[in-house]
Amino acid sequence: MEYSFASENFAPVHPVIMEALIAANKYHDYSYGADQISKKTKTLLREQFGQRIDVYFTYNGIGANNFGLSVLTQPCSVVLCADVSHLYVDESTAPETFTGCRLYPVLTNHGKIMLEELEKTARRFHSIHNPIPAVVTITQPTEYGTIYTVEEIREIARFCRKNEMYLHMDGARYFNAAAALHVPLGYFTYNTGVDVLTLGGTKNGMMFGEVVVFFSTKGKEWRKYQLKRAMQMSSKTRYIAAQFEAMITNELWRKIAGHANSMALIFESEIRNKSNLVVTHPVETNAVFLNMDEEMYQRLNEVVPFYKWGHQTGEVRFMFSHDINEREIHQFIYKMS
Amino acid sequence: MEYSFASENFAPVHPVIMEALIAANKYHDYSYGADQISKKTKTLLREQFGQRIDVYFTYNGIGANNFGLSVLTQPCSVVLCADVSHLYVDESTAPETFTGCRLYPVLTNHGKIMLEELEKTARRFHSIHNPIPAVVTITQPTEYGTIYTVEEIREIARFCRKNEMYLHMDGARYFNAAAALHVPLGYFTYNTGVDVLTLGGTKNGMMFGEVVVFFSTKGKEWRKYQLKRAMQMSSKTRYIAAQFEAMITNELWRKIAGHANSMALIFESEIRNKSNLVVTHPVETNAVFLNMDEEMYQRLNEVVPFYKWGHQTGEVRFMFSHDINEREIHQFIYKMS
Amino acid sequence: MEYSFASENFAPVHPVIMEALIAANKYHDYSYGADQISKKTKTLLREQFGQRIDVYFTYNGIGANNFGLSVLTQPCSVVLCADVSHLYVDESTAPETFTGCRLYPVLTNHGKIMLEELEKTARRFHSIHNPIPAVVTITQPTEYGTIYTVEEIREIARFCRKNEMYLHMDGARYFNAAAALHVPLGYFTYNTGVDVLTLGGTKNGMMFGEVVVFFSTKGKEWRKYQLKRAMQMSSKTRYIAAQFEAMITNELWRKIAGHANSMALIFESEIRNKSNLVVTHPVETNAVFLNMDEEMYQRLNEVVPFYKWGHQTGEVRFMFSHDINEREIHQFIYKMS
Amino acid sequence: MEYSFASENFAPVHPVIMEALIAANKYHDYSYGADQISKKTKTLLREQFGQRIDVYFTYNGIGANNFGLSVLTQPCSVVLCADVSHLYVDESTAPETFTGCRLYPVLTNHGKIMLEELEKTARRFHSIHNPIPAVVTITQPTEYGTIYTVEEIREIARFCRKNEMYLHMDGARYFNAAAALHVPLGYFTYNTGVDVLTLGGTKNGMMFGEVVVFFSTKGKEWRKYQLKRAMQMSSKTRYIAAQFEAMITNELWRKIAGHANSMALIFESEIRNKSNLVVTHPVETNAVFLNMDEEMYQRLNEVVPFYKWGHQTGEVRFMFSHDINEREIHQFIYKMS
Repeated sequence: MEYSFASENFAPVHPVIMEALIAANKYHDYSYGADQISKKTKTLLREQFGQRIDVYFTYNGIGANNFGLSVLTQPCSVVLCADVSHLYVDESTAPETFTGCRLYPVLTNHGKIMLEELEKTARRFHSIHNPIPAVVTITQPTEYGTIYTVEEIREIARFCRKNEMYLHMDGARYFNAAAALHVPLGYFTYNTGVDVLTLGGTKNGMMFGEVVVFFSTKGKEWRKYQLKRAMQMSSKTRYIAAQFEAMITNELWRKIAGHANSMALIFESEIRNKSNLVVTHPVETNAVFLNMDEEMYQRLNEVVPFYKWGHQTGEVRFMFSHDINEREIHQFIYKMS
Repeated sequence: MEYSFASENFAPVHPVIMEALIAANKYHDYSYGADQISKKTKTLLREQFGQRIDVYFTYNGIGANNFGLSVLTQPCSVVLCADVSHLYVDESTAPETFTGCRLYPVLTNHGKIMLEELEKTARRFHSIHNPIPAVVTITQPTEYGTIYTVEEIREIARFCRKNEMYLHMDGARYFNAAAALHVPLGYFTYNTGVDVLTLGGTKNGMMFGEVVVFFSTKGKEWRKYQLKRAMQMSSKTRYIAAQFEAMITNELWRKIAGHANSMALIFESEIRNKSNLVVTHPVETNAVFLNMDEEMYQRLNEVVPFYKWGHQTGEVRFMFSHDINEREIHQFIYKMS
Repeated sequence: MEYSFASENFAPVHPVIMEALIAANKYHDYSYGADQISKKTKTLLREQFGQRIDVYFTYNGIGANNFGLSVLTQPCSVVLCADVSHLYVDESTAPETFTGCRLYPVLTNHGKIMLEELEKTARRFHSIHNPIPAVVTITQPTEYGTIYTVEEIREIARFCRKNEMYLHMDGARYFNAAAALHVPLGYFTYNTGVDVLTLGGTKNGMMFGEVVVFFSTKGKEWRKYQLKRAMQMSSKTRYIAAQFEAMITNELWRKIAGHANSMALIFESEIRNKSNLVVTHPVETNAVFLNMDEEMYQRLNEVVPFYKWGHQTGEVRFMFSHDINEREIHQFIYKMS
Repeated sequence: MEYSFASENFAPVHPVIMEALIAANKYHDYSYGADQISKKTKTLLREQFGQRIDVYFTYNGIGANNFGLSVLTQPCSVVLCADVSHLYVDESTAPETFTGCRLYPVLTNHGKIMLEELEKTARRFHSIHNPIPAVVTITQPTEYGTIYTVEEIREIARFCRKNEMYLHMDGARYFNAAAALHVPLGYFTYNTGVDVLTLGGTKNGMMFGEVVVFFSTKGKEWRKYQLKRAMQMSSKTRYIAAQFEAMITNELWRKIAGHANSMALIFESEIRNKSNLVVTHPVETNAVFLNMDEEMYQRLNEVVPFYKWGHQTGEVRFMFSHDINEREIHQFIYKMS
């Protein structure tokens, strides 16, 4: 398959990342994160996110999210999440299994939790017969590619503080949000009140691996045990760390994510100019959502894969990975008509 | 407290039930359900619900529901439930803990799951990233006291069969539904496709205890082990069984539940005649829901306890237990004005 | 069945307890433990165990144990328990399901955990790949009816403090231990370092119900939610509380448990005098264990039920309930020969 | 660190494996195992293990073991495992969390479960108060590097069949066992009665990744959902599959594992010839266990890392990875004296 718009997971590993893996493949070193590369990468992450953070590497995003949430919750807790979030929609019952918590959906606007809906939802829990709301989790950027402003994040964080809850951020595509706004990597977490961040690598050209960044001190002593229990403690951690080292060094992430974002904008522009299809969400990172009839979806999906999103609404998703180029977009647009 | 409308749980045990407990309190007998009374009560239940049922006694409703559901599900399953159901609203994270399943709410009309909403909800689950819908659970009568018709139950059961799902019925107040329609006890389960029924005793004058009736053969060999794991296996089972024996014998349940139902109708009639308060759901069993402003609720609740239900809507609930009489209702109505 | 030696669960409810249930069966009162009787019983328990305790009622012992342990643990914890403990042997996988912990068995002597074995076992856990020992649980009296001295309890408690662990006591038959030593009810917990006690009622003539007494402040704010999640929160709590009220008042427990203990001693004496059977554990409360060949067990068990205990050793258990009398013991001894 | 004997996890990725990763890094392809490389690798595995197997890729061994066990068990099951097994000792509470089962240890001889001990242990579970033994898991080769003969495996499998249990094999170092006996890869599973095999790659020069091979049809329809729930479904599966493809092709595994095994034999021979240290287990694969006093351990471990194994016995472990050579062994032996 030459190219696709289905998911960044279809794309090969970025060549600079692959070189980093090859470079890391020398000598013996300690396992389970005690190696030199893991230590150095943690230093790099502290430079970006602050000296007081605590960092853990995981294999994938579902592991990162649920490991992070497990540290913030009790088995009698509720996690308030966006009704369209990956956690609620695409992580099977891993959250229930691993955290023991109830996931409770909050209505969203273009994928973003709005404060008033959050307040309304939280008020439902008020007796010993209900579980206790312990965490709000937001996705930055959202499943629809939209970005919470820093002020929106702060508002939700204030709500969390006021209600003795923690704020978790699923940043599976966090690099894309930071690249889109041309801001430093720590921008959305610096003084915003985020307690735990899943910093994703896989969607931006890594082979595998995510980072969980703790800003809060909550449950600090249990974290390494929870990571092990989550079956996410990598024996040869250096191969995850080396990829993140490459990603942070010289801001490789900004080039990768910035390119993907710009491809989405070009695609959107082409769609608006050359088709009657309706773009259903603001294009703020590297995703474009359209309405498309079933016949057209079937025909085009056979040519270049992309995902049907709203199975009841006719919404489809185009996702742009690090290696998509303008020529491929024009080629696809040409095939559409 | 002389009387209350908060919950049947506020009422004392019905005198006939208490006599049954006293009568059962003789001699030694086997523990964990191997006693004579448990055996006899199972025979009585088979006469009502069919010879092929499998019966287990539990301490309470939350235990009965989650034990029953655990037999029908895998930890990667979804249980589709009414958004207002006791399971979803009032059982904390016991379902997640004990079954490992995701609970997924379905929109309701006066507490009832409507087929089109159920179909719409079920369509959301279609990939390996989603858990698998395994059970629909309905409450008969619903949390609003309304009753599913046999045809409505059959429709939902047909939907379940077609989609390889099971149908669970939370009958915490099942006796009230059967008494309201003047039908035999098995009416709502006989040939309707219900796979598991929680038959409640506590809400109709018992001290404690519920029955789980299996119509399906699903997971038969695991049931007793699941009951133990659910911490719901009573050591002195005869004291639960004896209460159900009394309840079934001479249809005591029909007198108890029928009386409670008729008190609700009298109350509703009084409300309609003597107040401007709006009754918010059809009164079909022993519950009456009204809209009431906060000031009035505070004033009356101090006199005779009743529950605020919709914490955001001003809805209040009046629940009628086996020992409420007309005089008390008139007295309360008098105090209202 | 006239009488039995299988389990206290075979015996009827003690008449004074039954009278307490009848007396409690008046008026309406609040549910879920907010009633007058529950409040009064908690006051009585504070008089026995200290003003700073926190008290919860549960349906049964397995619920009491696992609820208590859940408050003291994380899902990545280990609970160190006697290899013959009820928790390890007779509670199915309820501990794993409800606490998420590993149970790890410690070798015992006549049912008692010896300090050196405890120390040896705890040393096995030293890396992030192991779960963390969080609790030692001891049974007082043990499954073999033997009693930990206060000094033995203090030694284990000191070990717990030194290793940042909590001490849980399963007191399913706690009344029997206190009656045997003619000490006040709080004797084994007063300044001994016990953090949580399961105080059993069912084995001493109650219909159902146990109490969980917290001496530690650990997890105080989560307890009521954990109780609900454990499916052990009784709706009509007054009927459990009333039984404990009767049990504490005028030290009814001492009469009941003391009588059962003395029956065990009489039985043991008869066995030693009139048979060649070997008593396998010191008789310190209301249990007598013997070695018995299969043929004799089969023959006698048909006459009066008692349990085979060691399925591989030929050990059998005789348990003495509140209503056993000397005549019955003599009758049985007569039948033995 | 030039070299080490602590764990194969300290070693770099084997160069042929790294080349396979580079070669796989072309074009777009489907995610979550629907890609060409995953399909081809499954074909290769079927050629080795039989056409009827069902294959899943996981990130690591703990994920592979617990995913496999979850398919074979119910949450009320017992998994009988070696007292020294990785599952029991080094996987924290992941088994309890993810499978809900009790792990129950069986005494071992040089790491191997002996049939008589297994039979003795299984007899402990005989009532509804016990969980149900569902699986025996054995490790091939064991944690001490010893190998079950095919006849020993068959004996345990027969025991499983007779008792309606399944047989799971943790083959984290399976390649080493097959290389040691110069047998085909399927040798230990072909007609031996093994139901599920964890086939490890990480310990033999892979970057990450294991395979779970199902021989049984048990729970076939739930497997992919359980894999997702276990948080082990890799988004870019081709990078795990490509490593296994390289491993199987031209029997690379035999060269890698065979070399490591032979290094262990050389080391053992040197130890026997040039030291007074006692080898504590037969050296059958790539591990050598010795008794060593604390002072010597501390001194040598600073030079070249190796693990203290028996924290109470003074046993230490030397593990030989794919890249260790004779010169390094001789150098270390020289440093010992």
